[in-house]
Amino acid sequence: MKKVLAINSGSSSFKYKLFTFPNEEVIASGIADRVGLKNAVFKIKLANGREYINNTHIPDQEAAVNLLIKSLKQYHVIDSLTELAGIGHRVVNGGEIFKDSTIIDQAKLQQIYDLADLAPLHNIPEANGIKAFMQILPNVPQVAVFDTSFHQTLDPVHYLYSIPYSYYEDYGIRKYGAHGTSVDYVVKRAAKLMGINHNIINLIVCHLGSGASITAVKGGKSYDTSMGFSPLAGVTMGTRSGDLDPTVVQRLMDKAGMSIDEVINVLNHKSGVLGISGVSSDMRDLIESKEKNAKLARRIFINRVVRYIGAYIAELGHIDGIVFTAGVGEHDPGIRAGVMSAFKYIGLEPDYKANQTDGEKFLSKPNSKVKALIVPTNEELMIARDVMRLTRQQ
Amino acid sequence: MKKVLAINSGSSSFKYKLFTFPNEEVIASGIADRVGLKNAVFKIKLANGREYINNTHIPDQEAAVNLLIKSLKQYHVIDSLTELAGIGHRVVNGGEIFKDSTIIDQAKLQQIYDLADLAPLHNIPEANGIKAFMQILPNVPQVAVFDTSFHQTLDPVHYLYSIPYSYYEDYGIRKYGAHGTSVDYVVKRAAKLMGINHNIINLIVCHLGSGASITAVKGGKSYDTSMGFSPLAGVTMGTRSGDLDPTVVQRLMDKAGMSIDEVINVLNHKSGVLGISGVSSDMRDLIESKEKNAKLARRIFINRVVRYIGAYIAELGHIDGIVFTAGVGEHDPGIRAGVMSAFKYIGLEPDYKANQTDGEKFLSKPNSKVKALIVPTNEELMIARDVMRLTRQQ
Repeated sequence: MKKVLAINSGSSSFKYKLFTFPNEEVIASGIADRVGLKNAVFKIKLANGREYINNTHIPDQEAAVNLLIKSLKQYHVIDSLTELAGIGHRVVNGGEIFKDSTIIDQAKLQQIYDLADLAPLHNIPEANGIKAFMQILPNVPQVAVFDTSFHQTLDPVHYLYSIPYSYYEDYGIRKYGAHGTSVDYVVKRAAKLMGINHNIINLIVCHLGSGASITAVKGGKSYDTSMGFSPLAGVTMGTRSGDLDPTVVQRLMDKAGMSIDEVINVLNHKSGVLGISGVSSDMRDLIESKEKNAKLARRIFINRVVRYIGAYIAELGHIDGIVFTAGVGEHDPGIRAGVMSAFKYIGLEPDYKANQTDGEKFLSKPNSKVKALIVPTNEELMIARDVMRLTRQQ
Repeated sequence: MKKVLAINSGSSSFKYKLFTFPNEEVIASGIADRVGLKNAVFKIKLANGREYINNTHIPDQEAAVNLLIKSLKQYHVIDSLTELAGIGHRVVNGGEIFKDSTIIDQAKLQQIYDLADLAPLHNIPEANGIKAFMQILPNVPQVAVFDTSFHQTLDPVHYLYSIPYSYYEDYGIRKYGAHGTSVDYVVKRAAKLMGINHNIINLIVCHLGSGASITAVKGGKSYDTSMGFSPLAGVTMGTRSGDLDPTVVQRLMDKAGMSIDEVINVLNHKSGVLGISGVSSDMRDLIESKEKNAKLARRIFINRVVRYIGAYIAELGHIDGIVFTAGVGEHDPGIRAGVMSAFKYIGLEPDYKANQTDGEKFLSKPNSKVKALIVPTNEELMIARDVMRLTRQQ
């Protein structure tokens, strides 16, 4: 039985999940946190539910990788490194270079570093994570899985901005999108549940978490998506503004005396439903809050999602279904109901009773022309599957 | 027979049209141009088609107003000032104060000056124009007609941005919209043509000129609109970008070394289809151009219009029709065809043959569930009608 690690690296941490194939079970998961900092910690949770927490000094990522390998052996999750088919790493931005997941060599690792300009907060820690695993485990294939790859099928009509074309050529300014790994997983799963070949399915995927994006899927491929050059674009989010009249940026710099970096920081971290409500970036807090703008923030969130779905229905002409995933999409019946009720005009008949509870299921009535579904996302499994797919090809 | 002047003032000019009521005919029109500058000129065109051009020194707006009155008498268009029921002035931004057109007194004139902050390039010349007419014709009612008033029916869900609420309270940052006078005219005219009471009609109005906006009309009122805090927002335009990922503004400042004002200037004057194509801001030039991005620019323009219409159909749930107006909307069959063909899924059956020629007409087949129409806009007539409506109430 082959085993695959899926890794999500941050600036001083990595999260991991170990899958077995072909049965796709998680046999270990956890985090190496505060690497290189005081009070570092290594956690591992086993398939039997037991969790072990190791408060120890972890000087660097290499040490963290060694600790992971040691722990996996110590708890008999793996006996030998040869069981590892490969290790998959989430990378936020693959630019226009990486149109698919890929096995990483030194040249490709350098390309990921070079793309850091497009995602400065993410690509460097992620490349550092890959580098550490490559050094400690030189004989295990390392695979990069990019959040942007799934959206590389977009046409220039959809990915170009209406600004001088030279800015695309010179500075790479275009729509890259995000959440691609999640959407790819969700599309394949939804197609299976709906009994439609995923190569001919048209869907709108609403990945609604603290970051939120809407993707129009045509014939199983990304056709348009709401996140843009950066994850700030698109719909209202927990703390992000989504699309904006650019004059607002100028206005805030003029009136509030902020620098451009301060404005962009506010738009990323203090806007969205948090900014409108003044209460919380968490949709659940807004239900219970008595603040006058709490409900308004939820209504605005629903409206922006409805707008994008409506826009993408017009682009696609026909859709088979609308799929909800990620934290809010999987667990907030009020948001889902608000969104679904807008689409009766295309033949969606919401099953509001089914919508009251969570879990993978249909949210539309059996005869509904257009379906609605919850499909819990599983980016780590998608990453692990890509490792299996690419290492088999070798 | 009552007569009404409609005035559109710029920084060193005003255009005028003189209407008769109740038959709504134009009996004189023209421009006072380069007022206060060298080579000033006054033009007047009469109902019989004759045009007179007077190259003369026009030191200021008051002199221009005097010249207009003198010319109207000289060519026997009016015999006495008592024939003038009032004078209507286009004003770009009425903020949240002016929810309807209004007869102007000194206090209201001051309010228009105070709102200049929201539309610095427009409100001051427009207020100066009103002031000049008030001084020369103190006994004739002056009426201000605001491009934003029609959109004051928007709900906070649609006019608020997803940014900290205090920015709305402190700096007036919200969606104001534009083209309201045009859309108001078009809605009433379309309702008449369609035989539906305008108080119950749902329409999408595409005002597509060098500036372009899409408005969702519900029960005859503006429900949502694509222009925002400024006219830079919404769809791709001749030279404007429309909505943008705010991170793009930051990127351009970082990479191209531009100031915020330089970026906003580029987004207003060098973007849109001009920026994409590198050819022209005029849609007609793009049809004939051999440049590789000329056709792409037109496709992007069509896509952004389709996206907004789709979004607004989702907001409204049901629409009676899609209406095209303004330069591109009235005269570009290719753009109209591209847009219409996206909406077969809601029961629009385009009549592509009818679409080949211009003029007020239906563009959908007789049995089409959702109609499409051209309605040539007439902002000046709408302004003149508002003068009649308000001066009758006195």
